[in-house]
Amino acid sequence: MHAIGVDIGGTKIAAGVVDDEGRILAQTRVGTEPDDASSIDRAIAEVCRDLAKEYEIGAIGLAAAGFVSPDRASVLFAPNIAWRDYPIAHRVGALLDLDVPIVVENDANAAGWAEFRFGVAREATDLLMLTVGTGLGGALVVNNQLVRGRWGVAAEVGHMRVVPDGHYCGCGHEGCWEQYASGTALVRDARAAAVARPKDAVPLLDLANGIAGDITGPLITTAAMAGDPLSIELLAELGRWIGEGAASVAALLDPELIVIGGGVGAAGALLLEPARQAYGESLPARGHRPEARLELAALGNEAGIVGAADLARA
Amino acid sequence: MHAIGVDIGGTKIAAGVVDDEGRILAQTRVGTEPDDASSIDRAIAEVCRDLAKEYEIGAIGLAAAGFVSPDRASVLFAPNIAWRDYPIAHRVGALLDLDVPIVVENDANAAGWAEFRFGVAREATDLLMLTVGTGLGGALVVNNQLVRGRWGVAAEVGHMRVVPDGHYCGCGHEGCWEQYASGTALVRDARAAAVARPKDAVPLLDLANGIAGDITGPLITTAAMAGDPLSIELLAELGRWIGEGAASVAALLDPELIVIGGGVGAAGALLLEPARQAYGESLPARGHRPEARLELAALGNEAGIVGAADLARA
Amino acid sequence: MHAIGVDIGGTKIAAGVVDDEGRILAQTRVGTEPDDASSIDRAIAEVCRDLAKEYEIGAIGLAAAGFVSPDRASVLFAPNIAWRDYPIAHRVGALLDLDVPIVVENDANAAGWAEFRFGVAREATDLLMLTVGTGLGGALVVNNQLVRGRWGVAAEVGHMRVVPDGHYCGCGHEGCWEQYASGTALVRDARAAAVARPKDAVPLLDLANGIAGDITGPLITTAAMAGDPLSIELLAELGRWIGEGAASVAALLDPELIVIGGGVGAAGALLLEPARQAYGESLPARGHRPEARLELAALGNEAGIVGAADLARA
Amino acid sequence: MHAIGVDIGGTKIAAGVVDDEGRILAQTRVGTEPDDASSIDRAIAEVCRDLAKEYEIGAIGLAAAGFVSPDRASVLFAPNIAWRDYPIAHRVGALLDLDVPIVVENDANAAGWAEFRFGVAREATDLLMLTVGTGLGGALVVNNQLVRGRWGVAAEVGHMRVVPDGHYCGCGHEGCWEQYASGTALVRDARAAAVARPKDAVPLLDLANGIAGDITGPLITTAAMAGDPLSIELLAELGRWIGEGAASVAALLDPELIVIGGGVGAAGALLLEPARQAYGESLPARGHRPEARLELAALGNEAGIVGAADLARA
Repeated sequence: MHAIGVDIGGTKIAAGVVDDEGRILAQTRVGTEPDDASSIDRAIAEVCRDLAKEYEIGAIGLAAAGFVSPDRASVLFAPNIAWRDYPIAHRVGALLDLDVPIVVENDANAAGWAEFRFGVAREATDLLMLTVGTGLGGALVVNNQLVRGRWGVAAEVGHMRVVPDGHYCGCGHEGCWEQYASGTALVRDARAAAVARPKDAVPLLDLANGIAGDITGPLITTAAMAGDPLSIELLAELGRWIGEGAASVAALLDPELIVIGGGVGAAGALLLEPARQAYGESLPARGHRPEARLELAALGNEAGIVGAADLARA
Repeated sequence: MHAIGVDIGGTKIAAGVVDDEGRILAQTRVGTEPDDASSIDRAIAEVCRDLAKEYEIGAIGLAAAGFVSPDRASVLFAPNIAWRDYPIAHRVGALLDLDVPIVVENDANAAGWAEFRFGVAREATDLLMLTVGTGLGGALVVNNQLVRGRWGVAAEVGHMRVVPDGHYCGCGHEGCWEQYASGTALVRDARAAAVARPKDAVPLLDLANGIAGDITGPLITTAAMAGDPLSIELLAELGRWIGEGAASVAALLDPELIVIGGGVGAAGALLLEPARQAYGESLPARGHRPEARLELAALGNEAGIVGAADLARA
Repeated sequence: MHAIGVDIGGTKIAAGVVDDEGRILAQTRVGTEPDDASSIDRAIAEVCRDLAKEYEIGAIGLAAAGFVSPDRASVLFAPNIAWRDYPIAHRVGALLDLDVPIVVENDANAAGWAEFRFGVAREATDLLMLTVGTGLGGALVVNNQLVRGRWGVAAEVGHMRVVPDGHYCGCGHEGCWEQYASGTALVRDARAAAVARPKDAVPLLDLANGIAGDITGPLITTAAMAGDPLSIELLAELGRWIGEGAASVAALLDPELIVIGGGVGAAGALLLEPARQAYGESLPARGHRPEARLELAALGNEAGIVGAADLARA
Repeated sequence: MHAIGVDIGGTKIAAGVVDDEGRILAQTRVGTEPDDASSIDRAIAEVCRDLAKEYEIGAIGLAAAGFVSPDRASVLFAPNIAWRDYPIAHRVGALLDLDVPIVVENDANAAGWAEFRFGVAREATDLLMLTVGTGLGGALVVNNQLVRGRWGVAAEVGHMRVVPDGHYCGCGHEGCWEQYASGTALVRDARAAAVARPKDAVPLLDLANGIAGDITGPLITTAAMAGDPLSIELLAELGRWIGEGAASVAALLDPELIVIGGGVGAAGALLLEPARQAYGESLPARGHRPEARLELAALGNEAGIVGAADLARA
């Protein structure tokens, strides 16, 4: 059965028709206005209507960056879009004349599900997906089922605390994992190194035209790939935090596979190898148990579309 | 259907016949020798044979303190009993002439399952069970299913790391949760206080006849209940670590209920209230989500028997 | 002998004539421009010339917020004023026709010295002074001598690390003491509590007209004095960090007195008592050694003037 | 002037005649009984009498592992010898017919002073001495003066807290520096690695005949020098903690030189280089200040004798 997956971001909507094998048959995107929920509804309805002209559609899945209600019909709360207890499935449905189920999922859950069904984890039964971007998002699959939690807000992996009294987090707490294992953390550490270790930071600062505030994640990755020791060290440190935190999750869930996706994943082995090493060194009961592999995500930016579509049809 | 549950400890075996409602209809126990795996097999067979004389039995569940294989037939590794890849279900079966399935479960999983099915969590769908005893064990239920993990070693909650470079753990790592949230941690902190804060420790030391090394968990609970400020503080500190760690697990799994069991649970509100407060103050996205309740376990030492029996019959 | 003390801030200069007993006989102040070092020189010369008209002056002491050279003649580096290896004593001297020594001191050292000579520590031989304001500054007196260090940059107490991987500091490092024990930390923790613990923060937010970003240190102190539990807790937490860090310094230096000054000291016992308790609980070898007392500073904003004058005449 | 220095350990006394240049002209040693203070007095008197037969002696210095009174005449408390407010100088004096001053010093202070006067720090004015042995001892010199503190118990560097909620320390507190930067920490980490990282630990375990409990500090150093990656890593980790802690001390005291002595110093560059790197990366205001050098101690086991003698004569 074909399904439409819609990935709703703060500034744009990307949607596609997805077949049973996870292939995207057609795709489209439009801009949005994050402060206007009903304009988002109309934009979603419009892209769905367009895609449904060419393909027979059995379900629509909406991937939303927010907390999703247990009945998968509403967004309870979103940090960046004006949704508060917002019945988005119903609203979009009212604008469409398609008689198909409309299902909402958390966007990180959708992306993780796509990896689980069609990506690097397609042979696994138990998955920890980590999306390392501006923040640290994730998804959990336990015994072939997506973990949504009692109230739909599970897999907020980035807010597991890894350092008591540690870095402040936007959530109001201290020491959240995403303050150590995210692109934001990477950039902040690089800028701090420009202050604390000015000599070591010369190559990186040169790339940023001498302005510490202009250092970005992609720039650090570029410098690391060109051999800059500080950038390599910063990515290794980020990888270490990923691996150490993943070992804590593994103590709880004993996953088969840990998948690293998100923008920072572009650093490849420079991130993955330190993560693997730290994971191995931190895993409880090593040697008395099989160990999860750590791998990079196989799917790209379309994972949200694919996963949302597949979950809608499930 | 009636089932036998067997709880296998290092020095004794407790077994009982359990009905569909989780009631124990008959119970027995024998001593064991932890270094002799086959004598344990024979003792298990003997108690099962005895119990099966009076009741018709449909299944046998064995609760074992160790890693259990995914097929629930063997113990992969046990810290305190001489089991290494030990096919205990087969061995016990060979000694019995009963034609019933024999199923092995981790003992903390069994106890947690009993709470989930028949105890304080019987209305819940998603559970975090914490067994606070010598160590910190636990069980996880996600969407009504016991989480065993890919290789059967999930729910090792005590080895989630909560303090980088923190207390040494017997597992070879540092900062494991059980080094802060267990009876062992409680006693160690009390003994350390006797050195670092001798005046504050006078009442507690008096109870221990002046010998710091004789301070025990029950003694601390007794002193706290009698109003000793240091003992109350020590239990509150333990509760704080339970609550803070539970908030990290909640970020991952969004449980409906968090249940505190094990010997230290005897401290009751002196432990539970600080745990609740710390949980509330540490929970990510508070106010934007429903919150799990923290409760004390309802079942006592027989939880392992009941859970093992029920899981065998499932 | 009378001496002039000059306290040079980013936006104003305060100066006074100080007698042998630490009394200020006359005082004056002018505005300054932090980006223009020579205008600061001229302003200093002007206030000194004015004060010298009425009093016979034997020395001039300049208190500067920066690193001071070992010969006490130059400022090596200042974070907020345009001084880099700046020979301030020579420059000011060239503008004055007074034949008196001109001596530069770090401003926190000068303030600490004033407490040591004329304030709460005037009977002590060994002092740790903590100035808890925007940051955490300090001064050290060992065996009646001000500790300047080999290169004049000692007593940067705020940059002792107290939490590995802890809060980011403007110095480029993580976990510096001043990120936990300063007015800035207090305000940041209050604003974080407004996010993480919205109910508890209602009284404090009300005082700030509902705007978390408008919470200030004095407002927290006001709320705490009026009985607001969260504000009391926040000050106690700040006090705890002061006391715990002071215990580490005491392990190194065995001071007789620890003095808490700076703007946050206005909280009085709400800060001091938790600091004392934490100090006592954290001090190594308690019971086998006499213990330093913790007290609030006795001198106010003029401590810099008094200390600079006294150090110049020494 | 010649002076006798006596280094009093738990099981033996070493003494020597020391000239003005710090040279030992004659040396002797006898066994002792730690539980019998008066037998220690007699043994000290005996070795002094022997040494005084051949040399004219102007002073006697006693180096004691304990807290020394401010008048340098008594030991207030010793962890390993039966001294409690023990007037050792007076007791030894009463047994001798020599009319010379007898002065007590803390043994780590004595050893640090020897390095300061005659060893690697003889050109320095401000010193941090770290004695990395079973524990972490030290000495501080500020502006050419030994820091004894108000009550004689300064320079307990090993009990500066470096990790909140960190490793338990025998002093009753958690996270003391010596639990991360000592031979004991090194050995404990190695044994933990044998559990947590069995493959990596194979070479080290082989040297210990397969018994984790038989791993020692010298064995780790031997393995590291032979190229064992785990042992090199363990020493580097130890060095990192030394360097990071030293940076905190430098924030307070701005020393000219940091000297690493004690048994673990035998690892040489394998310890020193990581310590230097961590120090540099952790030092506040790097680039805006001169930096202390880190060096290995120049004097060996006799440093206590030499320093005690020299301090007695001062």
